[in-house]
Amino acid sequence: MYGFKDKILKVDLAGRVCKVEAPGERFYRRFLGGRGLGLHYLLKGLKPEVDPLGPENILVFATGVTTGAPLPGFSRYSVVAKSPLTGGFGEAEAGGFWGPELKFAGFDAVVVEGSSRSPVYLWIHDGEAEIKDASGFWGQRTKETQEAIRRDVGEPLARIASIGPAGERLVRFACVLNELKYANGRGGLGAVMGSKRLKAVAVRGHGRPEFKDPDRVRDLAKWFAESFVKHPGAVSRGRFGTAEMVLPLNADGILPTRNFIRGTFDDAEEISGENMRNTITVDTEGCYACPIRCKRVVRGLEPYSTDPDYGGPEYETIGAFGSLCEVGDISAVSYANQLCNAYGMDTISAGCAVAFAMECFENGAIRKRDAGGLDLKFGNAEAMVKLTEMIATREGLGDILAEGVMRASEKIGRGAERYALHVKGKEIPMHEPRGKTGLALQYALSASGADHMQAAHDPAFERSVESIKPLGVLDTVGRLSLGPEKARLVKYLSLWWLLLDCLDVCKFTIAPHGVGVWRVNHLPEIVGAVTGWDTSLLELMLASERSVNMARVFNGRCGFTAKDDRIPQRFFEPLESGTRQGAKISEEELKKAIETTYSMMGWRQETGEPKQAKIEELDLKEYA
Amino acid sequence: MYGFKDKILKVDLAGRVCKVEAPGERFYRRFLGGRGLGLHYLLKGLKPEVDPLGPENILVFATGVTTGAPLPGFSRYSVVAKSPLTGGFGEAEAGGFWGPELKFAGFDAVVVEGSSRSPVYLWIHDGEAEIKDASGFWGQRTKETQEAIRRDVGEPLARIASIGPAGERLVRFACVLNELKYANGRGGLGAVMGSKRLKAVAVRGHGRPEFKDPDRVRDLAKWFAESFVKHPGAVSRGRFGTAEMVLPLNADGILPTRNFIRGTFDDAEEISGENMRNTITVDTEGCYACPIRCKRVVRGLEPYSTDPDYGGPEYETIGAFGSLCEVGDISAVSYANQLCNAYGMDTISAGCAVAFAMECFENGAIRKRDAGGLDLKFGNAEAMVKLTEMIATREGLGDILAEGVMRASEKIGRGAERYALHVKGKEIPMHEPRGKTGLALQYALSASGADHMQAAHDPAFERSVESIKPLGVLDTVGRLSLGPEKARLVKYLSLWWLLLDCLDVCKFTIAPHGVGVWRVNHLPEIVGAVTGWDTSLLELMLASERSVNMARVFNGRCGFTAKDDRIPQRFFEPLESGTRQGAKISEEELKKAIETTYSMMGWRQETGEPKQAKIEELDLKEYA
Repeated sequence: MYGFKDKILKVDLAGRVCKVEAPGERFYRRFLGGRGLGLHYLLKGLKPEVDPLGPENILVFATGVTTGAPLPGFSRYSVVAKSPLTGGFGEAEAGGFWGPELKFAGFDAVVVEGSSRSPVYLWIHDGEAEIKDASGFWGQRTKETQEAIRRDVGEPLARIASIGPAGERLVRFACVLNELKYANGRGGLGAVMGSKRLKAVAVRGHGRPEFKDPDRVRDLAKWFAESFVKHPGAVSRGRFGTAEMVLPLNADGILPTRNFIRGTFDDAEEISGENMRNTITVDTEGCYACPIRCKRVVRGLEPYSTDPDYGGPEYETIGAFGSLCEVGDISAVSYANQLCNAYGMDTISAGCAVAFAMECFENGAIRKRDAGGLDLKFGNAEAMVKLTEMIATREGLGDILAEGVMRASEKIGRGAERYALHVKGKEIPMHEPRGKTGLALQYALSASGADHMQAAHDPAFERSVESIKPLGVLDTVGRLSLGPEKARLVKYLSLWWLLLDCLDVCKFTIAPHGVGVWRVNHLPEIVGAVTGWDTSLLELMLASERSVNMARVFNGRCGFTAKDDRIPQRFFEPLESGTRQGAKISEEELKKAIETTYSMMGWRQETGEPKQAKIEELDLKEYA
Repeated sequence: MYGFKDKILKVDLAGRVCKVEAPGERFYRRFLGGRGLGLHYLLKGLKPEVDPLGPENILVFATGVTTGAPLPGFSRYSVVAKSPLTGGFGEAEAGGFWGPELKFAGFDAVVVEGSSRSPVYLWIHDGEAEIKDASGFWGQRTKETQEAIRRDVGEPLARIASIGPAGERLVRFACVLNELKYANGRGGLGAVMGSKRLKAVAVRGHGRPEFKDPDRVRDLAKWFAESFVKHPGAVSRGRFGTAEMVLPLNADGILPTRNFIRGTFDDAEEISGENMRNTITVDTEGCYACPIRCKRVVRGLEPYSTDPDYGGPEYETIGAFGSLCEVGDISAVSYANQLCNAYGMDTISAGCAVAFAMECFENGAIRKRDAGGLDLKFGNAEAMVKLTEMIATREGLGDILAEGVMRASEKIGRGAERYALHVKGKEIPMHEPRGKTGLALQYALSASGADHMQAAHDPAFERSVESIKPLGVLDTVGRLSLGPEKARLVKYLSLWWLLLDCLDVCKFTIAPHGVGVWRVNHLPEIVGAVTGWDTSLLELMLASERSVNMARVFNGRCGFTAKDDRIPQRFFEPLESGTRQGAKISEEELKKAIETTYSMMGWRQETGEPKQAKIEELDLKEYA
């Protein structure tokens, strides 16, 4: 086997049994890994009515067939389960070092079933797997957990994917982290670990995956190394991190601000990548085999001094705790980021929950006494930080917000639903659909709720589609269009980006992302060099489409219908500031675009589920 | 411009005007050439109700963007028009030397409109085009025509695509031939030339297409040269030609015999490639840049002595005049082949017309006196040869058969419809769907009527799908299945084979054909090396799908509906001999498979036309 190990570790936490499955090459070729592989286990094993936080949920950690190749960007892994936040398909990818290490330890994926009575962690090393006691560090934050487990297994280089106290307390947007900063952020998969009393999965291995054409893999690595230094997007990302997006988005009037009421933030400069670099950044970091080093290492300034080990805030985090809450203090944002990484919470949902609470507060839906005395006005950095911690510890108002804005707004009442911005229960990421309408369509259609990494962003394709011509998109498309040409763009781009989630490839490193050094056509070439398969972009895109339809089938079972493919009312209302002031999504145009996309995807208009012929075309009858 | 010239020659025969259009790179990238390019001109220029044999029909000669590359198999060209045989989309490809020569002469395609009062031919040479008088050789057979035109233009190396007397006489299955033997055979496009009084298109040029990556093109040519000699299928094809199929198909019980009543022929040995090689074959030939040399040069034995310049019979011709008529005399078959090439008729339709007449005769629907005294029993070689000539000259019964079996059966009456085997008016090729059911589905669905080169043949995929895995087909499919897995196979294989008709690539030289030396993934690589486009198999398959849907739109305009997607009743009845005796297609299963394929293709169940979303996905609104 080249690329993959043909070993899936199946862990029954209730029975404390580990066993190994070898599904064979066809399985890997059909699913490629990641979300596709995970969906297979969810569809085969999960009863639809299962409580995501009950013992019957299934949690999968999966790599792709190319994970662990010494190529920049090929180092991620997926965690999937039924999401406690959406009640449907939950997925989250993370970079770092854990994914490759799992493969070096001899496994492609870990499927966790059941739940343990007492806290445990998994220790997977060189083909072996053990369920070990975690009682000693239950309740601890991620850093202490990581240190304790490394001591416990006597392996300082073990890679630890763990939860923090937020996951243990079943915060519905708790995340999984490796190396304290690479997060499988979204959808509350850390709460699923918490509900299973699984504190961490520690991995260490000395085996390296074999490649069919190691010379070609080496040449490709060399090509990347020589190319990225000449690539302006990659160089800039290395210098400023993802925070480099703050100022251009603000100038473009689509920096999410004041819980998406505004598109510009007066203090954008303060939370920009440029300012970060000049003030709190002390170093940069990157994932396995990647020289771009897009991660920041920061030390916040007093009173928000932070521990560099927890990393620095990404653009999404800066948007959520910064402009969305109108907090113009990069140290406060970094502190909130550290809280999230230490307690194990998704920074997007956490920041959105705070901004939601602030808008409730400004409109009287939450009163000061409901907020434990916090003055939850937009712009109050101290209140933002405090409320973030209260969510992590489920204290007071934090306990309500820990359920996510959808559930919180129902509990709060008083018109709070109007301020709860989410798709399928998942909070909106820091990308404003009113200035790039493809995002509205893609937010609505995503099986796992609002996700900014499932279809590329429109403005780029108004200027040029050169990088995505191999995907069959030959003509530029206006960023504000919602016509059939936009539906087509979203169809092919979302299949492409979700392909990257099957292979667990970093979306920054590859086209059409502005940082992308790899071109679209590198992907089939790399898959071929690694696995030896005579594959093609067509075959890979069909595998992605398979996973997209499996997610639809899964959601259908969980009770989702076409009416859940929608975006919050706010986006049908005008933006209140900036160069795009007055911009709004046409509800009618979006409805029509959704219908068109359904039809292009082969989905039923009534339910949003795949039609029989699509199921048959993708050979999914065993799941439908 | 690499690969293509961005020059389309537009000829108005009525006004005697030639002009040149430069549609630009996007046009070539969307259509690639061949059938796709031709469909653009038909959809833009043709009124739906136009008589295919009237002056308003449009006739396009088109190459692909890779035509003329010095690579085996990249030498074909398409002729398209509204077909006088089907009344819908008509297309036929041919190899030889004409296609590359057109490009060397500076044009990618020729679009012919209107009709001339007196016979003319086109003379296209090194960027120039002239409409020249052909009165002097109107009425002449192809060989005399070719010689006369070469003398007339003073260019012995001019390549001539011409019609013969059959085209002039509007035989509805008249063909176009270059070098007297490479035929754009099917659908009666020679009759369209005849109706326009266009005797020939002569081309000669000294320009060579430029390639973006000439070194890569050279390396690919070298790779093929080194590979084909080691490839058993290619070697065997060079030794025996397409006639090598006779004996294996006979052994398999699917050699079309006695007008598709039987699947085995007692005299198969006599008409086999092996026997041809031992008796009448005097040399072999091949197309531009191709070393396989699959064409036969034969000299028939008395009383059927033939002129080697007309080439030897292909498998299809041997099936049609041989086993289908139960004529076990390879020289008689070769003589009929020569008649077809000299008079310019499609050998498949001509042979089928004779076999149809024989079955009518055996059943009393045609009497001896209707047949000019011929004893039209199956197996009568002399009668077969004579009737073939009568069709070419439209003499007696031949005049009726020259209309094709569908129209002839209506004229003959007396139950003759039962013996008229056709799809959409086009006679069935020499491949028996009762032993490979995918063919039944593909015959029914083809926009241009029964065609054996629009989806590959099933038995190969019962054994292995290795060669088509890049097309996303990962599992073997039983040859007799008509389930959804067969619909999927037919969908992807027909898109693949029709892609080859956009690029005008020889289907023998590339996978999945048994002779194929090129693999599927060579195609995007070659297109990229030639054009410089960063393309992919996905993009190319979408271009093919574009052409497939354009053909559907065209047929819809011509009045075709879902009910025309059907096969003759005979195939629902049992085969009467051989190892597959009793085999039949289930009418119900086929109906279901057609419905499934419609749905997989995004076509309306009621009409078979593309749904709005498919039109939009492929950006075809301007045609729909």
